[in-house]
Amino acid sequence: MDRTGIQPDSALAGAVTELAEVLGPKGIFTQAGDRARYASDQSGLVGDTPVAVLRPASTEEVSRVLAICSRHRIGVVPQGGRTGLSGGACSPQDAVVLSTERMSGVVEVDREAMTLTAWAGTPLEAVQEAARAADLDYPVDIGARGTATIGGTIATNAGGIRVLQHGMTRPNVLGLEAVLADGSVVSRLGKTVKDNSGFDLKQLFIGSEGTLGVVTKAVLQLRRHVPQSALALFALPDHASALVCLTAARQRFGSRIRAFEGMWPDYWNFVCHQTALATAPLAGQHGFYLLVEIEAASTQTEEELEAFFADLFERGVFEDGVLAKSLAEMRALWSVREAVGEVDDDFGHHINFDIGVSPSALGNFCDAADSVLAELPEAVGVLKVGHVGDGNVHLLVAHDGSAAAEERIEAAIYGLLRDWQGAVTAEHGVGRIKARWLGHCRTPEELALMRGLKTQMDPLGILNPSVLFRDTEI
Amino acid sequence: MDRTGIQPDSALAGAVTELAEVLGPKGIFTQAGDRARYASDQSGLVGDTPVAVLRPASTEEVSRVLAICSRHRIGVVPQGGRTGLSGGACSPQDAVVLSTERMSGVVEVDREAMTLTAWAGTPLEAVQEAARAADLDYPVDIGARGTATIGGTIATNAGGIRVLQHGMTRPNVLGLEAVLADGSVVSRLGKTVKDNSGFDLKQLFIGSEGTLGVVTKAVLQLRRHVPQSALALFALPDHASALVCLTAARQRFGSRIRAFEGMWPDYWNFVCHQTALATAPLAGQHGFYLLVEIEAASTQTEEELEAFFADLFERGVFEDGVLAKSLAEMRALWSVREAVGEVDDDFGHHINFDIGVSPSALGNFCDAADSVLAELPEAVGVLKVGHVGDGNVHLLVAHDGSAAAEERIEAAIYGLLRDWQGAVTAEHGVGRIKARWLGHCRTPEELALMRGLKTQMDPLGILNPSVLFRDTEI
Repeated sequence: MDRTGIQPDSALAGAVTELAEVLGPKGIFTQAGDRARYASDQSGLVGDTPVAVLRPASTEEVSRVLAICSRHRIGVVPQGGRTGLSGGACSPQDAVVLSTERMSGVVEVDREAMTLTAWAGTPLEAVQEAARAADLDYPVDIGARGTATIGGTIATNAGGIRVLQHGMTRPNVLGLEAVLADGSVVSRLGKTVKDNSGFDLKQLFIGSEGTLGVVTKAVLQLRRHVPQSALALFALPDHASALVCLTAARQRFGSRIRAFEGMWPDYWNFVCHQTALATAPLAGQHGFYLLVEIEAASTQTEEELEAFFADLFERGVFEDGVLAKSLAEMRALWSVREAVGEVDDDFGHHINFDIGVSPSALGNFCDAADSVLAELPEAVGVLKVGHVGDGNVHLLVAHDGSAAAEERIEAAIYGLLRDWQGAVTAEHGVGRIKARWLGHCRTPEELALMRGLKTQMDPLGILNPSVLFRDTEI
Repeated sequence: MDRTGIQPDSALAGAVTELAEVLGPKGIFTQAGDRARYASDQSGLVGDTPVAVLRPASTEEVSRVLAICSRHRIGVVPQGGRTGLSGGACSPQDAVVLSTERMSGVVEVDREAMTLTAWAGTPLEAVQEAARAADLDYPVDIGARGTATIGGTIATNAGGIRVLQHGMTRPNVLGLEAVLADGSVVSRLGKTVKDNSGFDLKQLFIGSEGTLGVVTKAVLQLRRHVPQSALALFALPDHASALVCLTAARQRFGSRIRAFEGMWPDYWNFVCHQTALATAPLAGQHGFYLLVEIEAASTQTEEELEAFFADLFERGVFEDGVLAKSLAEMRALWSVREAVGEVDDDFGHHINFDIGVSPSALGNFCDAADSVLAELPEAVGVLKVGHVGDGNVHLLVAHDGSAAAEERIEAAIYGLLRDWQGAVTAEHGVGRIKARWLGHCRTPEELALMRGLKTQMDPLGILNPSVLFRDTEI
């Protein structure tokens, strides 16, 4: 049920009055039209219109509103850019949204310490640009960079296309400030790189999807900016050959491998022939396609990549390949991989799985998934694309749009995953959509410990109710 | 009080009988002579002889003995190689020691996934050697490698000389198995690199010094093995020049900087002229000394380092320098930095501080520390050496050996640290020795959250009592 009326329950109305007093007229939306825009994220799940949208402008205000919400036992949905794909920012019934949109901006870039301090609501792209202006680089990068916020990327431990080189968001966060459910501010915003003085509390807030606290500010670790890189596209007989390439590339380039992205023929053919792209950078049919980007160590990187190319070709590892000779060519090669966004529109009703397994097991897992799906009449199409270097496949499975078909396909894929020591979500997060499947990849003991931590840190369960834990509706 | 008698308290005796039944004759030491060897670590703190030494041989046995200790409310001190420097493995009164020494061995090396799975009791060096045998590398490295165990390095988030390149222990652990105080086994030993399926529970056990669980097994992330590197020693006017070198080195070599170690003149002069080393690799008096090791990307690394050298020399950044031309010369240069072990013997009574601050603030912090110590008659000598690239200084302060002198010096240095957003321990850990100073670098809100987590996960406080939390004696 959606409470969009002007007059919410009297208890809620009392709380909203208190919240409005703290936040002032700019700091809260109570009109139905304003509130409706904050109901959902990009997951496809339709959220309820929140009772109010809280727009605090400082950590102090976040602290005060959470204390009020605790006292009234009101669910709070933390929101950044609402670009999430798992429903983690969709509002359940009778909850308020806490948007970080007014806590935006880069506070400081420290060139010597190579750090950047920013408010949680700062868009990822603004952080990347501020780093770049100091000739440095913030390496976390995802397609939604223009809208996704730093707070959101921290809360979801965002991954993306450069995980192989610099990890997900977790290792790139040096300091963090977060507010707990009761309003306590846990702040550690120094630039100390090595710190074994007690528990590393920031780890609790990174990747816990707003269920343990609301991130307000962060100190990020920047890297040197290396503008040059070389890019190649390989056509291979199968995923096993891609692993041979990966081992060889690691041996030769080590941590200079910037991206190592794989496309299965189902994805390649669909993108090259059935989307607006309508062009294939390589002719013929192959068993696997690999996009490899290598950071330049010197001016010889293209030559290095060519030598690597020649080596592997002589060994018969790949069947065809092309090396980008210009920025335009690099963009063209990347566009095939990045067309996954267009696929979302053109592929019809589908589930976008985000499976993580050991990189060496990814090919076998995908083969097993194909076999399982072939037995299911509900699965009318499959596309596979992913981060081969770190064992993460986005498996898109088309169906007729019915809940029954969705249910059967999810049960089949997540059922398969049980035997692979993998993750029901590698990078998109559990949110509200995958909470029911969490037990397929975490043990009862792990789930009990997670629940214990949640109970300890948010005893009333006000923070992002029904995210991660299905039954935490207040 | 030390309970070394054959007949402990009857309650304890009953518990020991139960423990002996689970562990069998090989799995428990109850004789005073055997037990005494497990009282202390290398911190200088003298522990009590434990009531019994438990030597479980499996995760199942760890689970059963912790359940028994919980039931009887007996303190348990987890022990690896007892090489810690903060008293984290020293036994308090009436506690049992749980040694991982019978849970030793590398279980598997997976070349394709670049992972190594090992029991907690495996010595670090054995892990390094097993990785090397597969032409791979486990990059965590500390002086105590031959004795320190993987479980101990994980529990203390060990640092060392290669943190700049591959981080401390934390980012090198992929999977973990730990046993909670009540005997629950929390196991996640897959090789999945990307995993956002719920809380990243392993982060709780890494660096929490055995206060939240006992690590039994781990999956470690290996790196490619790069045998070649180039090493240079620079003499500079001051620490500020070392930061100029650091920025320049980062720009040129990026993540290929393997070590960036600094020595202040007090340390340099003491080591070169007052220890067995008795030789200085560079003549003259300088304001700062820097040891820089660069991983080879190609055969030209020495030439690259020479060019880097020439650049900085022209810019007047350094005063003198030497490039190692052979393995023997590399060893000779490293020996000055590694003589910190000999200093421990030759420098008399001293406190070994392990301060962490922002790398860009390290020089100023050390200057401030010198000023503070100059005012203290108790401080009769100071040596400063550390990991300049990651803001960690080991500050050795000599005194007359009295508790009063120690107290005054600690109060002065940790008091100074309050204003620097730093860490009372960067890598050695808090243990029992630094627990009283934790409030000098963590806020009351942080300490309250730490205590909440401890209470949630170990409600009876049996795991490593008095470590981190001074008042958690059972």
